[in-house]
Amino acid sequence: MTSAQYDVLAIGNAIFDVLVRTEDDFLVRHGMTKGGMALIDEVRAAAIYADMGQATEMSGGSAANTIVGLASFGARTAYVGKVKDDQIGRLYSHDIRAAGVTFQTMPAKDGPATGCSYILVTPDGERTMNTYLGAAQDLTPADIDEAQIAAAAITYLEGYLWDPPQAKEAFLKASKIAHGAGRRVALTLSDAFCVDRYRGEFLDLMRSKTVDLIFANESELHSLYQTSDFDTAIKQLSQDVALGVVTRSEKGCAVVEGTDVTMVPASPIDQLVDTTGAGDLFAAGFLFGLVRGAGHHNSGRLAALAAAEVIQHIGARPQVSLKDLAQQHGLPV
Amino acid sequence: MTSAQYDVLAIGNAIFDVLVRTEDDFLVRHGMTKGGMALIDEVRAAAIYADMGQATEMSGGSAANTIVGLASFGARTAYVGKVKDDQIGRLYSHDIRAAGVTFQTMPAKDGPATGCSYILVTPDGERTMNTYLGAAQDLTPADIDEAQIAAAAITYLEGYLWDPPQAKEAFLKASKIAHGAGRRVALTLSDAFCVDRYRGEFLDLMRSKTVDLIFANESELHSLYQTSDFDTAIKQLSQDVALGVVTRSEKGCAVVEGTDVTMVPASPIDQLVDTTGAGDLFAAGFLFGLVRGAGHHNSGRLAALAAAEVIQHIGARPQVSLKDLAQQHGLPV
Repeated sequence: MTSAQYDVLAIGNAIFDVLVRTEDDFLVRHGMTKGGMALIDEVRAAAIYADMGQATEMSGGSAANTIVGLASFGARTAYVGKVKDDQIGRLYSHDIRAAGVTFQTMPAKDGPATGCSYILVTPDGERTMNTYLGAAQDLTPADIDEAQIAAAAITYLEGYLWDPPQAKEAFLKASKIAHGAGRRVALTLSDAFCVDRYRGEFLDLMRSKTVDLIFANESELHSLYQTSDFDTAIKQLSQDVALGVVTRSEKGCAVVEGTDVTMVPASPIDQLVDTTGAGDLFAAGFLFGLVRGAGHHNSGRLAALAAAEVIQHIGARPQVSLKDLAQQHGLPV
Repeated sequence: MTSAQYDVLAIGNAIFDVLVRTEDDFLVRHGMTKGGMALIDEVRAAAIYADMGQATEMSGGSAANTIVGLASFGARTAYVGKVKDDQIGRLYSHDIRAAGVTFQTMPAKDGPATGCSYILVTPDGERTMNTYLGAAQDLTPADIDEAQIAAAAITYLEGYLWDPPQAKEAFLKASKIAHGAGRRVALTLSDAFCVDRYRGEFLDLMRSKTVDLIFANESELHSLYQTSDFDTAIKQLSQDVALGVVTRSEKGCAVVEGTDVTMVPASPIDQLVDTTGAGDLFAAGFLFGLVRGAGHHNSGRLAALAAAEVIQHIGARPQVSLKDLAQQHGLPV
């Protein structure tokens, strides 16, 4: 096995975020499930957008936010995701490259527009996402470059990839290449409703060792094992995957490796503004710790720190250098 | 004269803002004049953008920011400005309408893309703007609807309109209609460099009574009269225009009507984040006071309050209801 050119390569749905602060009654009026990610078609996207207030736009996408976070810590990173060659796709491509991430996926020349998520941020800081996948639906196995995957110490995938039909195949192809090259594969379960859609397949991925590391939040974990008991779920997780990291919002996280469970507290915050990207940036910090060999506890602290940064402002990407932030907190970078 | 359907109608360059925090050396490296607005062509836009970090996007444009601020105070508003019928143009149109502003200008079907401003925000909160006018160049007198202008108590124009060739004619047409209908016309001088480009024409507009109200900041005023002495400039302004409002950043503003000069202090702020839109929102507050008959002092206070809100976050549009904010401060709305 040669030394890795990238610390982490992420594959995900490339989604442009359209964020707006709103009251809870907007969610009720549009029949939205607060805190979730719902897939919407063009017609519903238009209806929601027409009713939304003035927005702020920025690049998003779960795995893309994670990889940008990793780059902000100083990791060597690459991203695979599909935009269209349209105005929003060009903004998207600019942003991820400007963050220092290698991004070589060919944009779609025709077909649907670059994907967008209409994100409603309520006064309590919770975000509710309505995602129009658009061009992200056209990610195929042909977009997976074997040499690039083989050159990444960790390939990181989002569960959301199970939604667009061919992305799943791209995911499986990437996992096979990574393992063939002696690398590791990580997966985030993304969303409790996503887990509900693909529970059996996600469990198969874990039990077949297609993935080595799972990120989940409490509700995703409970959905995965269809239990409301945390300890039961953790025990099952420990049997199904080599390494599991479970986030519990302000209660911190649990890092599970066999019978070894490490609990790490959340980082204190001044004010919760917008939870968009909390899980994505948590994963960034943990993966950064992992590739730097920081150990479970310090990896969890890096994760908590990155999550705390991103929930204190609007938008899912860090506004400061996470490397500087980690240094200020005496954490290894 | 019939009663007005709109309190204020604004005409301006419709510009989408691409904002990024940066260090001062970025400005030096690209030969930018800090605090100014420079017009750039497509080639320079591409060069600047390629070197910029991850951005946040939102609708902008000087007069558009003002009219959105007025709508946020609760005024009845309309906007005239040219975007292209492209993705960014559609985001732009959504935002201004979502703010409650009537916006009926036909988007351009072909020609250049919707205009963008690449805005660099340095650590001191100062913004430096690089504007690609794009479709805004195609605003013509045909976009001025006589009935709509005649229905607005005040028509508000930005000095930046002097840059695109035909917008100037649209401006003059609008002023003539407004005055023919017994309405008032206001102009912001926009930028000291803009004043330098069009000094003679701006003075002619004032002296020929094509405009009744002038907004200027200190440096624009000094540029207009080519003097560094504030009192000299104020005296000349009082002779050239019926009503002049001069902003002086943290020193507040001076409202000049003949020999009557009212000084109003600035509103206190916790933290200066981004000055983008400070003058635009100041004008919004002042115009709102004016249409509500609040008097010079209270109009100045409304202006200062709106400016203080917008400089405490990234972006040139208010993030809270200015009506609520004014009420919280005991100001008349």
